[in-house]
Amino acid sequence: MKILVLLSGGTDSATCLAQAVEKVGAENVETLNMTYGQRHVKEIENAKALADYYGVNYTLIDLTEVFNFSNCALLGHSTDEIKHESYTSQVNNLEGNDKINTYVPFRNGVMLSVCTTFALSKGCCEIYIGSHASDHAYPDCTPEFDNAMRDAIYEGSGHKVLPKYPLWDKTKTEVIKTGLELGVPYHLTWSCYEGKEKACGKCASCIDRLNAFKENLATDPIAYEGE
Amino acid sequence: MKILVLLSGGTDSATCLAQAVEKVGAENVETLNMTYGQRHVKEIENAKALADYYGVNYTLIDLTEVFNFSNCALLGHSTDEIKHESYTSQVNNLEGNDKINTYVPFRNGVMLSVCTTFALSKGCCEIYIGSHASDHAYPDCTPEFDNAMRDAIYEGSGHKVLPKYPLWDKTKTEVIKTGLELGVPYHLTWSCYEGKEKACGKCASCIDRLNAFKENLATDPIAYEGE
Repeated sequence: MKILVLLSGGTDSATCLAQAVEKVGAENVETLNMTYGQRHVKEIENAKALADYYGVNYTLIDLTEVFNFSNCALLGHSTDEIKHESYTSQVNNLEGNDKINTYVPFRNGVMLSVCTTFALSKGCCEIYIGSHASDHAYPDCTPEFDNAMRDAIYEGSGHKVLPKYPLWDKTKTEVIKTGLELGVPYHLTWSCYEGKEKACGKCASCIDRLNAFKENLATDPIAYEGE
Repeated sequence: MKILVLLSGGTDSATCLAQAVEKVGAENVETLNMTYGQRHVKEIENAKALADYYGVNYTLIDLTEVFNFSNCALLGHSTDEIKHESYTSQVNNLEGNDKINTYVPFRNGVMLSVCTTFALSKGCCEIYIGSHASDHAYPDCTPEFDNAMRDAIYEGSGHKVLPKYPLWDKTKTEVIKTGLELGVPYHLTWSCYEGKEKACGKCASCIDRLNAFKENLATDPIAYEGE
């Protein structure tokens, strides 16, 4: 059996990659990485380094054109700024039907669909995705979305491909715990939403990551600004 | 209210475009057209001509890279051939879990996802899609797929976008009937899977189209080979 891992270069997908390699061996794992105009295009180098570390096939697809018309703060061309505030605090301060400003419109739907095309083309019957229980700040990262998308992928692929969420029930802290046990090379990962030389330590993604290492009584091996 | 029409340049999406313009006016209609490495890239010119005819905004997105690894016969780089046989006959001759060789892997999932991103970016709350009742030869064109995908889009967009299928209950013949009543400029449409100067008249898509005009006692206004 072959598994396709949706690889971003972050800690969650790196952990999924370790799980896939453990399950079916590096020779049966494909990784797919996508660039979509993100500020933190740096994470692409990390994804490639992770694939090299595990000795698995790596493919990069450029989806920048798809997100050209969005002003989401996560995109390099956006006029909006990344907030230095946790996900929880941002979600709690939303008004009405607003979404937090790092929501890339339907990015996960697009990525999962592209993964399905790739999985069918490469003969992979499972797609590993790093979504987990601390990960519901975005509408395309909720159980409702993931359940519907799973059915769409299964039906639309002619019952040949199924998305799997090996970290589904875990909090971010438990994801890092799992990865530390599997020996994931977290020094090769990148989470910061800003695309600078060192991680900012202040955006929602950095806050989340730093907290998870701290709760595991472990040291985050990457460099942060001001250190 | 703004409507996004997924425009291919074929008869179904042209009919949907006419319906959208009738409902909300040309100024509130966006059209999105995608190239994905198809042999019949000619249909792109037709999509543009249809958008110009109706005076609506038109955007083209290139997804060729996404389908680079597939050998589907519909793709320009494929070594497989387009069969000169109807959909029904092809589906009836399938063995086991095979799919007909013009199934572009999860193309409709990718296209609908990209449409959702675009709709969110442009403030459209509905996406018009030309799927209809004679259209179930492909796994990503079945009621099961469309129902799941509708839920995924609604949830993943934060309840802001809904796909609509205005031709859902109609056969191909009834689609053409609807379009003829709305004055759709079918001379600007293209259906043939081969990308030649004139339509071949022999592929599943041509057979389907010719039959629909015939059953409406109407003449298909485009040119066919050998005429």
